[in-house]
Amino acid sequence: LKAAQWHAAVNRSYERLLRASQCGLVLQFGGVVGTLSVFGERAFEVTDAFAAELGLPAADAPWHSHRDRLVELGSALAILAGSLGKIATDVSLLMQSEVGELREVSEPGRGASSALPHKQNPVGCLVALTGARRTPGMLASLLGCMRHEHERALGSWQAEWPVYPDLCRSVAAAVVAIDDTISRMTVDGVRMRSNLEASKGLIYSEALTYALLPSMGKKEARILVETLVSEVGNGHLDLQSAVQNSDAPADGPTKDGLSRAMSLDVLIGNCSRLVERLCGGACASSNEE
Amino acid sequence: LKAAQWHAAVNRSYERLLRASQCGLVLQFGGVVGTLSVFGERAFEVTDAFAAELGLPAADAPWHSHRDRLVELGSALAILAGSLGKIATDVSLLMQSEVGELREVSEPGRGASSALPHKQNPVGCLVALTGARRTPGMLASLLGCMRHEHERALGSWQAEWPVYPDLCRSVAAAVVAIDDTISRMTVDGVRMRSNLEASKGLIYSEALTYALLPSMGKKEARILVETLVSEVGNGHLDLQSAVQNSDAPADGPTKDGLSRAMSLDVLIGNCSRLVERLCGGACASSNEE
Amino acid sequence: LKAAQWHAAVNRSYERLLRASQCGLVLQFGGVVGTLSVFGERAFEVTDAFAAELGLPAADAPWHSHRDRLVELGSALAILAGSLGKIATDVSLLMQSEVGELREVSEPGRGASSALPHKQNPVGCLVALTGARRTPGMLASLLGCMRHEHERALGSWQAEWPVYPDLCRSVAAAVVAIDDTISRMTVDGVRMRSNLEASKGLIYSEALTYALLPSMGKKEARILVETLVSEVGNGHLDLQSAVQNSDAPADGPTKDGLSRAMSLDVLIGNCSRLVERLCGGACASSNEE
Amino acid sequence: LKAAQWHAAVNRSYERLLRASQCGLVLQFGGVVGTLSVFGERAFEVTDAFAAELGLPAADAPWHSHRDRLVELGSALAILAGSLGKIATDVSLLMQSEVGELREVSEPGRGASSALPHKQNPVGCLVALTGARRTPGMLASLLGCMRHEHERALGSWQAEWPVYPDLCRSVAAAVVAIDDTISRMTVDGVRMRSNLEASKGLIYSEALTYALLPSMGKKEARILVETLVSEVGNGHLDLQSAVQNSDAPADGPTKDGLSRAMSLDVLIGNCSRLVERLCGGACASSNEE
Repeated sequence: LKAAQWHAAVNRSYERLLRASQCGLVLQFGGVVGTLSVFGERAFEVTDAFAAELGLPAADAPWHSHRDRLVELGSALAILAGSLGKIATDVSLLMQSEVGELREVSEPGRGASSALPHKQNPVGCLVALTGARRTPGMLASLLGCMRHEHERALGSWQAEWPVYPDLCRSVAAAVVAIDDTISRMTVDGVRMRSNLEASKGLIYSEALTYALLPSMGKKEARILVETLVSEVGNGHLDLQSAVQNSDAPADGPTKDGLSRAMSLDVLIGNCSRLVERLCGGACASSNEE
Repeated sequence: LKAAQWHAAVNRSYERLLRASQCGLVLQFGGVVGTLSVFGERAFEVTDAFAAELGLPAADAPWHSHRDRLVELGSALAILAGSLGKIATDVSLLMQSEVGELREVSEPGRGASSALPHKQNPVGCLVALTGARRTPGMLASLLGCMRHEHERALGSWQAEWPVYPDLCRSVAAAVVAIDDTISRMTVDGVRMRSNLEASKGLIYSEALTYALLPSMGKKEARILVETLVSEVGNGHLDLQSAVQNSDAPADGPTKDGLSRAMSLDVLIGNCSRLVERLCGGACASSNEE
Repeated sequence: LKAAQWHAAVNRSYERLLRASQCGLVLQFGGVVGTLSVFGERAFEVTDAFAAELGLPAADAPWHSHRDRLVELGSALAILAGSLGKIATDVSLLMQSEVGELREVSEPGRGASSALPHKQNPVGCLVALTGARRTPGMLASLLGCMRHEHERALGSWQAEWPVYPDLCRSVAAAVVAIDDTISRMTVDGVRMRSNLEASKGLIYSEALTYALLPSMGKKEARILVETLVSEVGNGHLDLQSAVQNSDAPADGPTKDGLSRAMSLDVLIGNCSRLVERLCGGACASSNEE
Repeated sequence: LKAAQWHAAVNRSYERLLRASQCGLVLQFGGVVGTLSVFGERAFEVTDAFAAELGLPAADAPWHSHRDRLVELGSALAILAGSLGKIATDVSLLMQSEVGELREVSEPGRGASSALPHKQNPVGCLVALTGARRTPGMLASLLGCMRHEHERALGSWQAEWPVYPDLCRSVAAAVVAIDDTISRMTVDGVRMRSNLEASKGLIYSEALTYALLPSMGKKEARILVETLVSEVGNGHLDLQSAVQNSDAPADGPTKDGLSRAMSLDVLIGNCSRLVERLCGGACASSNEE
């Protein structure tokens, strides 16, 4: 489900970039002050021929001093960088040695630390995170350059020149890096399960509260669960045993009912349906957890 | 044409906001970790009922930790703020006392300076410029918050909370302010013409260069025009007289041809067609210069 | 006074940069996790020798994951860029053809427009404004990179690498450009005076209000001046004549007193003392207006 | 050492704020256009009296349109926010359930999750991280507002008005939150040690490389250690045993020498001296690890 969410976010960015390209990648051609005056009557004819020559759509009119078209493209790129940064954040947190739920298949030299021979740096995540940290400032620059003076601003569009290539390069590098990282990822399902079990059943505290609701008020259920939770925290019981040992209300859930409610199957019950909705049929099968 | 460009930019932002709203204003509902687990089999039924209750479309899946939907909305707002800031920049530059091509119809107390009784501050532009200066930093914050950790980030979404209302308020204030400013604007056509004439014909330097091109090489035409331009700069002639007095090539444009090329009519010749293309029929008639 | 304010702002930045350099330009040397462990007992001896080799002061301890030292340097640079942008804004507004109070001494090719032979672009201002528009986003990136994870952040310090050189280059270019622009500036005092006179005395509205205060209440003085101001706005009188023609209070200022109050000498009376305070003796003489 | 680094960073910010306050918290008083003209000869006398009344130092001259003084103060605040965000990042990573090296002493209701009774949200870190994520965009706004037009900018200083209080509140909240968090922190030394031991000695890979250097070339030492590291990765040995079992060079370190090199004592050997240097005597005793 986590990977399907990543997939869906990248997909939304893909659609967003397509639309932004249609708006932003159009010919700007207007002559000195944007009136096409030197071309006289043939102004739009010249415009269309020039556009055809460049393989770009012609805009309805010159748009030099209105940068919204370009900034929409820039913001679509920056949003993609943010989504890739989110993926990299998740992956790198899962790769921490104390968590260990993901690993990258290594190859000689890749991500090697110059000083620590045992360390494998998640270089793909690094590239995506580097991009995600720099793009917000870049977009702030582009937005800040929109206040063009009249038809030819002083410094505003020149300030954009170094930003767009830098933005494109950062995002492109992040796309390649995340694609590469995802293709190298190994999921350690055993470790996932043991990390969950290390919680001594506390991950079921919400499920337990809901299971108790029909026979208890919301407030009472919450108080009971909090008491059980603090017993678990101080001792060696897990939450499942703690509740079985407690004085549950007579008309409450049976021990079997509690066991069923507090199970991984229930906790992740909707995941495959959600994956299906996020990715559609083809992708769901390969991403299904 | 200048106003038509403003109009078209605002129109593009309107379309952009509509699309961004469709993407961003959708129900987020996922339970504690985004799996809707406590609702079991009835998860999507509950989701749809909740969405209907709120009058929001339901998303395909919970999307709490993927903020691209909201940031797209934020960037559409920030782009609009930039376009309104561009309008305010143009208007305030045209309202400078030394330029004087625009005035705001005043009303008692509006824009009054506390210290200078004669001064009328362009308060509508002020509001729009204030917004345009703050929104880039706001969007940088929103983009910087996209790197959510796992399913429940620490501080990332809380950091968005004050930003979205602030962004909405800033943009809404700018919309109202520019709408009000535009409705109060008086155009001083006489001043416009006299500002143009104060250039002693130098505004025709490009037109003159093009008029000479058929009979001279590009380089020669440029050199001739630069010579004439510096004569104008040092003396009392205007460019039209300077070229009539010069040794123009025999097969060059006639004196009449030069006069025609160096006229305001030619310079703004395409403006009404451009206004038509930018605004369509209805709007062109009222914006036509 | 305007130029003296520019001077003082740049001077404050100079001091700020010196201090920030002392804090930021110090050796970072800590080994893999910042404990200097492989150097054992001789850790600080090695550190000092390394610092001497590089000609950098040694810090009290490794500081790799605490970036405040560097960001202070970055913010001092960004503040200088902002002050240079303010100078460029003032200069370019004063160079507008409708204002014309400043000109740059031109040289062939400098600031030439490719399309408009008569146009001279203020290229020095352009460079400074370009820098001032990009540096806020750069500093946002540097600040956003401060949240290093533990002793070796993933992507945070790599994200700084392209920003610092870019920031240094932008600021250095702006320094050179403004220095060059200032050295080429010609002040047109005649134009300044005629622009002031074009206000028909309205620039004295505050002085007039204060001159009336001893004999009238604040509110009455304000109302009287506003009435006079609107007479000036609608007709051909200047404010000096309007007040002389009005029914001033018997115990109010004499006609001579009013004339003295409404004079350029009074309006700029404190300027040279302010210049002296801003620049000190040496500089005041050459900047005095 | 980690906490001492936090302490030293906050201390540097304290000094930075003191200096920035001296520069930024000074009276701005200049009259309408910053010439103090209505006060005539007594201008500086009035200024000094006003400053005394407010308990603020007087500046050398009015500084309304030069904002560097205020932005220095803003950047000192933003840098502090960044350093507090770094502390919060470290603390929250150490509080992850899979790491568990830090805990906050809880009190009823503090950080309680509305849905998960067992969860304790690190609310202090949350507040600091929220601040650290928003302040870079705020400072970008302040820097972007420095380009005042002439003596009275349109919208630039108004745009600062909501930013400074927001910045102060965010930083103040973060200071209080981190102070509170630090005072509640319990360090789990047993868990720290077991997390280190879970690395099967790999944390000594750098120390081992250095121990081998006297008897082997740098390249050979690196290759040997990498081989040993991969043996550890695939099996059940720790690095200490792996190297004892290997064919170490005859003139290399003895088994005892290797044991000594690969010990926690050596690894953290310089920590207390570093803490001493960072905090000075008083503080070192209470922060010593």
